[in-house]
Amino acid sequence: MSEDKNRLQRFRENRSEQNEKVLGLDHLGIKRFFNMDSNTYRDGALPKQTKELLGLVASAVLRCNDCIDYHLEQCAKTGSAKEEIVDALNVALIVGGSIVIPHMRHAVETLEMLEEEGLL
Amino acid sequence: MSEDKNRLQRFRENRSEQNEKVLGLDHLGIKRFFNMDSNTYRDGALPKQTKELLGLVASAVLRCNDCIDYHLEQCAKTGSAKEEIVDALNVALIVGGSIVIPHMRHAVETLEMLEEEGLL
Amino acid sequence: MSEDKNRLQRFRENRSEQNEKVLGLDHLGIKRFFNMDSNTYRDGALPKQTKELLGLVASAVLRCNDCIDYHLEQCAKTGSAKEEIVDALNVALIVGGSIVIPHMRHAVETLEMLEEEGLL
Amino acid sequence: MSEDKNRLQRFRENRSEQNEKVLGLDHLGIKRFFNMDSNTYRDGALPKQTKELLGLVASAVLRCNDCIDYHLEQCAKTGSAKEEIVDALNVALIVGGSIVIPHMRHAVETLEMLEEEGLL
Amino acid sequence: MSEDKNRLQRFRENRSEQNEKVLGLDHLGIKRFFNMDSNTYRDGALPKQTKELLGLVASAVLRCNDCIDYHLEQCAKTGSAKEEIVDALNVALIVGGSIVIPHMRHAVETLEMLEEEGLL
Amino acid sequence: MSEDKNRLQRFRENRSEQNEKVLGLDHLGIKRFFNMDSNTYRDGALPKQTKELLGLVASAVLRCNDCIDYHLEQCAKTGSAKEEIVDALNVALIVGGSIVIPHMRHAVETLEMLEEEGLL
Repeated sequence: MSEDKNRLQRFRENRSEQNEKVLGLDHLGIKRFFNMDSNTYRDGALPKQTKELLGLVASAVLRCNDCIDYHLEQCAKTGSAKEEIVDALNVALIVGGSIVIPHMRHAVETLEMLEEEGLL
Repeated sequence: MSEDKNRLQRFRENRSEQNEKVLGLDHLGIKRFFNMDSNTYRDGALPKQTKELLGLVASAVLRCNDCIDYHLEQCAKTGSAKEEIVDALNVALIVGGSIVIPHMRHAVETLEMLEEEGLL
Repeated sequence: MSEDKNRLQRFRENRSEQNEKVLGLDHLGIKRFFNMDSNTYRDGALPKQTKELLGLVASAVLRCNDCIDYHLEQCAKTGSAKEEIVDALNVALIVGGSIVIPHMRHAVETLEMLEEEGLL
Repeated sequence: MSEDKNRLQRFRENRSEQNEKVLGLDHLGIKRFFNMDSNTYRDGALPKQTKELLGLVASAVLRCNDCIDYHLEQCAKTGSAKEEIVDALNVALIVGGSIVIPHMRHAVETLEMLEEEGLL
Repeated sequence: MSEDKNRLQRFRENRSEQNEKVLGLDHLGIKRFFNMDSNTYRDGALPKQTKELLGLVASAVLRCNDCIDYHLEQCAKTGSAKEEIVDALNVALIVGGSIVIPHMRHAVETLEMLEEEGLL
Repeated sequence: MSEDKNRLQRFRENRSEQNEKVLGLDHLGIKRFFNMDSNTYRDGALPKQTKELLGLVASAVLRCNDCIDYHLEQCAKTGSAKEEIVDALNVALIVGGSIVIPHMRHAVETLEMLEEEGLL
């Protein structure tokens, strides 16, 4: 893994490699959960764009940086503008309180990386 | 408080009375927080309808029935259809896991009450 | 719902009725999650008796009384003795801290009800 | 248990009775934890008055009404004024966010009961 | 960012830079929340020294190392002695349980750094 | 601390050194809690092997990687097979939801390190 990759790029690589290892444990329940998790964010009664914002806010109030990074990228890819993503993060901040602030700091850094990549 | 009111009606009354008491404590920080909380769900970069869905999912993964009831009603009032609300709750269920199930049971009962009132 | 039923009996009834309503929402993701949840506690690499103890401790540290009641009953039905269940609850108490104590109080009351029913 | 007792009085009775039952399980680890828990709030490097405020804020951000009620009473008994208790709850509200609001509503009601009893 | 800075010094720099970026998002709700958060720990019914201890315990039971580091420094600066800070952390350990232990390990290391800087 | 040690080996060293520092704070309550914590996982009504699985699942749903690593190693040392540990982690995944997935990725990596060391 190259050192000249930024935090987000290394996260993507690690996430992908390690997810493969988790699936490689060959536990039926785990594999089904991963499959169900992917399906959750597809277009349904709500469009995937809205669902990714929901996933982002859930990740932020539960305070998981890896989950925040994943959903930030998905929010960008499904068409949310930066202002909309920030407005969603504000909901998470009010619901979750100042304990969410370190994750706001993390998120704003990830948003910059997504902008540099032209994804946002 | 009348006994022939249902759970949701009693919650609304209690919530309103007790919020008044909290504001009556006359603590500037608390009053400002309550004011800011209300402002959070107004139209902004995201429409209030979407923000109420975000508030609902945040409430569900943090497992607070009172917050779920409040946001379910706001979701209905801001124009989300039952199917959309249920799709949002499914995101909360997947992110938050089976520990969220008792709150799904609570939410489905509240949805029924909102339907009976013609709000949904 | 009869008033002369105890807390545990009313919980069982409510849980069953409301689970039906949740499944009646007819959301594929929710139905799949409920199905997967049931499968999780079947005999696998670990016997269901051990898995129910795991579910109990997870419920206790996450502080959900309904989940605690459900898993206490399943622990009894899958053959765990009262002393073993209490030893598992002690692990939850140490990991989760004094914030778990109200749930210990709830659990000990449920254990009594299960004993009265001859399940434990 | 008399019906003309208020919520706080019934809580005290239930808490006391059920704690006895938990200790009656006769699990050495549980008994030691309960003992250690009591010792924690005695005068030490910090006076018990301050420690009860710490216990209150911890209970509020972890969102446990029973723990909040217990520590509110202990705060009153160890000499904190209502204004000081409310200022502590404001810290919990900011750190924990709007998800703490229902517990603020609960706490303000308990504060009233303590005032009626002349404890505050 | 120099490599010969210790963890605490790098945290301060990062925190400051990233907070600027969060405020630079120019979202009114977020800016107001940050402002309100600062005001919370000023002298009020409770002195700021006590409030920083409350913030520390809230951070510890919610298990956020960045928040712990921030409040440890503020506790030192507002006049709490090391023994008092440790006594507060013990309350967090009992309320929050063994899951708080890794954060105790983190906190003790930060306390050492504050001592080396002469802040404690 | 040598750079050619892997993540698990460095964790063991840090954990041991920092635990010494925590005990070196010489706070009676903290020392007693650490002592009680060790005793919790000894053979009792439940064998230590089962209790370590309980500790693992509690750590996973509360989402603490350090605690997960510690209990993974103890699970291996007390005789649980890899398949049993994975089956326990699946319970944690279902109870705790997708927010647990990053910890599954962490755990699978730790399992590999334990296998390389011949502990599993």
